[in-house]
Amino acid sequence: MTDLTRVLERIDSDQPAALERLFELLRIDSISTDPAHAAACRRAADWLVEDLRGIGFAASRRDTPGHPMVVGHADGPGPHLLFYGHYDVQPVDPLELWNRPPFDPAIEDTPHGKVIRARGASDDKGQLMTFLEALRAYRAVTGGFPCRLTVLFEGEEESGSPSLMPFLEANRDELAADLALVCDTGMWDRRTPMIVTMLRGLVGEEVVIRAASHDLHSGLYGGAAANPIRILARILAGLHDADGRVTLPGFYDGVEDLSPRMRAEWAALGFDEAAFLGEVGLSHPAGERGYPVMEQITVRPTCEFNGISGGYAGPGFKTVLPASAMAKVSFRLVPGQDPERIRAAFRAHVEAGLPPDARAEFHPHGGAPATVLPTDSPPFQKARAALSQEWERPAVFMGMGGSIPIVGHFHKVLGMNSLLIGFAQKDDALHAPNEKYDLASFHRGARSWARVLHALAGG
Amino acid sequence: MTDLTRVLERIDSDQPAALERLFELLRIDSISTDPAHAAACRRAADWLVEDLRGIGFAASRRDTPGHPMVVGHADGPGPHLLFYGHYDVQPVDPLELWNRPPFDPAIEDTPHGKVIRARGASDDKGQLMTFLEALRAYRAVTGGFPCRLTVLFEGEEESGSPSLMPFLEANRDELAADLALVCDTGMWDRRTPMIVTMLRGLVGEEVVIRAASHDLHSGLYGGAAANPIRILARILAGLHDADGRVTLPGFYDGVEDLSPRMRAEWAALGFDEAAFLGEVGLSHPAGERGYPVMEQITVRPTCEFNGISGGYAGPGFKTVLPASAMAKVSFRLVPGQDPERIRAAFRAHVEAGLPPDARAEFHPHGGAPATVLPTDSPPFQKARAALSQEWERPAVFMGMGGSIPIVGHFHKVLGMNSLLIGFAQKDDALHAPNEKYDLASFHRGARSWARVLHALAGG
Repeated sequence: MTDLTRVLERIDSDQPAALERLFELLRIDSISTDPAHAAACRRAADWLVEDLRGIGFAASRRDTPGHPMVVGHADGPGPHLLFYGHYDVQPVDPLELWNRPPFDPAIEDTPHGKVIRARGASDDKGQLMTFLEALRAYRAVTGGFPCRLTVLFEGEEESGSPSLMPFLEANRDELAADLALVCDTGMWDRRTPMIVTMLRGLVGEEVVIRAASHDLHSGLYGGAAANPIRILARILAGLHDADGRVTLPGFYDGVEDLSPRMRAEWAALGFDEAAFLGEVGLSHPAGERGYPVMEQITVRPTCEFNGISGGYAGPGFKTVLPASAMAKVSFRLVPGQDPERIRAAFRAHVEAGLPPDARAEFHPHGGAPATVLPTDSPPFQKARAALSQEWERPAVFMGMGGSIPIVGHFHKVLGMNSLLIGFAQKDDALHAPNEKYDLASFHRGARSWARVLHALAGG
Repeated sequence: MTDLTRVLERIDSDQPAALERLFELLRIDSISTDPAHAAACRRAADWLVEDLRGIGFAASRRDTPGHPMVVGHADGPGPHLLFYGHYDVQPVDPLELWNRPPFDPAIEDTPHGKVIRARGASDDKGQLMTFLEALRAYRAVTGGFPCRLTVLFEGEEESGSPSLMPFLEANRDELAADLALVCDTGMWDRRTPMIVTMLRGLVGEEVVIRAASHDLHSGLYGGAAANPIRILARILAGLHDADGRVTLPGFYDGVEDLSPRMRAEWAALGFDEAAFLGEVGLSHPAGERGYPVMEQITVRPTCEFNGISGGYAGPGFKTVLPASAMAKVSFRLVPGQDPERIRAAFRAHVEAGLPPDARAEFHPHGGAPATVLPTDSPPFQKARAALSQEWERPAVFMGMGGSIPIVGHFHKVLGMNSLLIGFAQKDDALHAPNEKYDLASFHRGARSWARVLHALAGG
């Protein structure tokens, strides 16, 4: 029996204890975007430090001006790998849409099998624990690890990662490795593993429109005073044309259509548009006309409105004419687009839409370009083979619609490429009420990492 | 010395105690639109019952399915008058913009004189107390009242008055009088009293746009899934044209321009557009092009957005693609417009703007047509003369932009006209943070009512 076989068996037999460990971490309400949860973020970091030490890492909590990082090191014969995950989670509102308390994890039966239900079960606590469970099994079986390992856990991924770049820059020598492993992505479907080879970038902007010096009574001023909600609605409505294309000048400069070869490969995967939309109660693609849904969500740039508020939105009615209105707007970027040029074009669009007496305030929330990874290099080919063995299906190389800015940072600051492997499913309800992680993802995710480490070490 | 002179002197000498009474009422946080404040509304009603009894009224709290009414009766030789006011107030958010706690009233010095600072100081607790203080002085001086009086205080004026019509209908015989007196309006300016002779009507609508079955991650679905904020922004932006006119078909049917004679009279008042807008930090009329501000805010119909919400609007950023978005929209109506036709036209506009997969829910919030009152009738002429005496300036007859649906209800259900006299100033910050009422309004308002009662009783 090979070491790898014994490691995989150990992962299988240790599942009940592995779940207990994950549940402990899921019970910590580490919502990074809300300052009220700062202590919880620190508790999650401390928990990970303890767990890493338990499996033989030299680990510590590394405080930052925001939420702390966790860094751990362990030696091994193979290449130096930096594993990245994040312990912070999204807010849970609207809480009333959750079927159970978001920080009280439980196993539930569903038509697609057992799932782990909790905020962060999939994004990203369940995912990062697949890697720690693989390491734990390696250590238990072999007394060590197949590669030299550095682990980096972040606590601000869901709130724009303000401390990340300074931390990477200040600790460049400690963190630079041969390759980064990032576990924050999904599978193609429940049976098919996936390595993400392209990520959209992201520009986030919060815009506040202000007019009168204070809220007015619409009976006294209605008809004569500038209404920030009306101004904002008009500005937002002008960001898309009738074909769903973004109207900002230069927005599509440098954006290329998918090659005919890739389009053919993707078509062969048999993506089911109707099922994809149907799962969330929709039936019509709402994106750029002329592009299939698969491209709309991965290789086409977008402009989305993530939040809006202004005036009185509570119960009942208040005939107020508000002094301000706010929107949170994000752009998903593809290769060829520059985040700061897009941000500037958005701000110019807003300014151009302001009537007299109105002014705009802008608050940037992150900006990262899209990323393309070297699929032909040996680590990508080895990892693909390892995943294909575990899942008994060829792993697919795929572009992804979400943004994982860390991948760009690793490349820029630490000179590394990232291998993006994850086990989330499309119905995990990421960032939404009733988030879950398939039990199979958690279990076979750990087995997958054991195989990938074995392969990267030289097999 | 005449009775009236002694009554006026009594009002003067009783000011300190009158202020104490008003402060007691202002300390009650009777926000009618928020169910959490139901007990406070009841306390305000009970306080008024006790005060009415103290000045010789047979008064009682009359419970309704919503907040209670207060009704009081007292005999007198003159005509039967029904006085109306409301004890409920607007919500206080955003609380952080208040310079002192909204339910802890205080006298403050300002460049325009002393003011009473509190939520409800002007709208409508300070105003209704001017009438009670006039009655109290009459009773103290003469042992009775110059007219037969019925008092009706409502607790749902700021939340659409759902219980009002059923209450009026159920108590028609008890409440019907020769004339209604309504104290919920303002003065032309600090020196010039005003009787409002036209009121705009109001239609309130809350619309919720829904698309996906739950909130989505914009990284996974962005570009392909319908975004309710985007749909709502487009629908709202389509409600006004480039000239600031409302685009709903038939919206202006039956709406007439001000007569050349009225336009000339109003022009003679020397309304200062720049000062009116400048007081709230604005400089450009934002309403219907081609109409002066004075007309935009009084005799032109409007469409305003009073509230909007959707997605994540808290601190930080959340790349959510929300399942729903909501707006509160109101229309101010002028004579000739039918509230239910306008409501239907709005709903049709929304429905026509829904792409596939989106649906709209509507929640009505009140609907009342505009009102025109008989300025040539004797009570209007007598009241005008009485006000002109108190303020030593001719009282003006004026249209008003706000809606006081009670005036229409009194006409329709009880067959009465309403005499709209109030002492609010344009800078009272009604419905906004730091609401105030001029001390002069409170004091001379009570004196004004004493004179008006005397005049209506036959002088």
